[in-house]
Amino acid sequence: MKVYIIGLGLIGGSLAIDIQKEFKDATIFGIDTNENHLNEALELGIIQKKTSLESLNNADVIIISVPVDTSLNLIKDVLDLISEDAVVIDVGSTKVDICKSVENHPKRRNFLASHPIAGTEFSGPKAAIKDLYRGKTNIICEVEKTAFKLQEKALSIFTKIGMRIRYMDPRSHDKHIAYVSHLSHISSFMLGKTVIEKEKNERDIFDMAGSGFASTVRLAKSSPEMWTPIFKQNKVNVIEILEEYILNLQNFKELMEKNNFDQIHAEMQNTNHIKQILNGILSNA
Amino acid sequence: MKVYIIGLGLIGGSLAIDIQKEFKDATIFGIDTNENHLNEALELGIIQKKTSLESLNNADVIIISVPVDTSLNLIKDVLDLISEDAVVIDVGSTKVDICKSVENHPKRRNFLASHPIAGTEFSGPKAAIKDLYRGKTNIICEVEKTAFKLQEKALSIFTKIGMRIRYMDPRSHDKHIAYVSHLSHISSFMLGKTVIEKEKNERDIFDMAGSGFASTVRLAKSSPEMWTPIFKQNKVNVIEILEEYILNLQNFKELMEKNNFDQIHAEMQNTNHIKQILNGILSNA
Repeated sequence: MKVYIIGLGLIGGSLAIDIQKEFKDATIFGIDTNENHLNEALELGIIQKKTSLESLNNADVIIISVPVDTSLNLIKDVLDLISEDAVVIDVGSTKVDICKSVENHPKRRNFLASHPIAGTEFSGPKAAIKDLYRGKTNIICEVEKTAFKLQEKALSIFTKIGMRIRYMDPRSHDKHIAYVSHLSHISSFMLGKTVIEKEKNERDIFDMAGSGFASTVRLAKSSPEMWTPIFKQNKVNVIEILEEYILNLQNFKELMEKNNFDQIHAEMQNTNHIKQILNGILSNA
Repeated sequence: MKVYIIGLGLIGGSLAIDIQKEFKDATIFGIDTNENHLNEALELGIIQKKTSLESLNNADVIIISVPVDTSLNLIKDVLDLISEDAVVIDVGSTKVDICKSVENHPKRRNFLASHPIAGTEFSGPKAAIKDLYRGKTNIICEVEKTAFKLQEKALSIFTKIGMRIRYMDPRSHDKHIAYVSHLSHISSFMLGKTVIEKEKNERDIFDMAGSGFASTVRLAKSSPEMWTPIFKQNKVNVIEILEEYILNLQNFKELMEKNNFDQIHAEMQNTNHIKQILNGILSNA
């Protein structure tokens, strides 16, 4: 099985590692516009060969793990280049615009839209780790638009590397992922910004920060190159949930100003059952 | 050494465990208004004996780890009851009101105000863990107001359990801790609230949440009983930083509305150097 991975960052690189581990007959070919990343991936053993788009006609499986704005044209170009039996899998964090970009492509049935919900705050080939996907969820969109045999091929990869599959339409995906992923990134980036601005002249104050602060600002280490196009493509959903978040924060502030600490207690208590929800996530983590 | 711990939750219980480990001559006495917690602490071996305030005159060291509103009167009452050579250490998350509550007490020199910056999102005696304090920072306030020999006694405990000591005045402590701890708790509670409200009819959506969401809402599991009085006592500082956080979120939203994604990229990139800051925290964690 010849697997071509376009984009050798955290997501693509980790897929390469797990596919090599689970499929002994797999050869991993790497493509990246960043020549340094390509060389790093080869040195780290993440890929077996460096290659370019011109050789895509030899591929069985093509995984596209690049910033989501790049995907909009790249997926179409890749579909133009592949053989009839190859499957092109995108793994981006948005789905509406990506599915739309290929809806009228003559090789639409060679394409599978997916979003493996896994990652860390790091990026680049050095961030790639094995078993990143084990026990995690992969959202597949518009599965019915992919040729049956190619669905099977793609799903055998995802299930072998340990993922559980959920099916969803692109609109629902983009809406809900704004709530449970994209908003967290904004809250974290702005928390980091707020505190850095306040403490810019007193850097040793960060001595006082504990593991709680580290946890809430962890995502502020994420790559702006990945996240800017995600926010752009999912703008409507992200703005909607961001507004609700701001309203809840304003409400909390007003309760404090009015000394209504009974209500503040109630708000926190009502939110405490996030424990059960998080236990669900962590048991899959 | 007879160590009396008043309040056997995560903080008091974890101190009990580490003090027992490091001081072979220590006997740990427990006091708690919650009889269940007291019995649990005894069964778990966190304390050796249950006792009550009446026997405090036998204590060498008294640690007060209760909600910060309770401390305001409790510390004074405890000071009234202890012997001349005992040291009373409070470990609460606010310092201005607590220091003020004892400023005119005749036994002020028997009191040491501290804030060990350590914890988890869990609470109660079952949450107590060993080595919680190792490598963490302890902020000591108004050290000059504590008798020299009693400073020494308290510091020997904190350094033996692995803490590094920083000295700070109560006002600076409360201001900076609002930035690097209290704000994180509000951002996390309101993030949890926002997403739970949105998804209340679609609980299986949390299948989609990954480790990033778990990390940013982790603190929303914290105890409302501990945190309501903290926000109350540190109201002015918390409101000030919360306002700045809200302004930064509004600004981010407006940049999205205006499609100014170049600036959004710049904001994230500028905040990325939180990496170095967090590396500092984590290397102490």
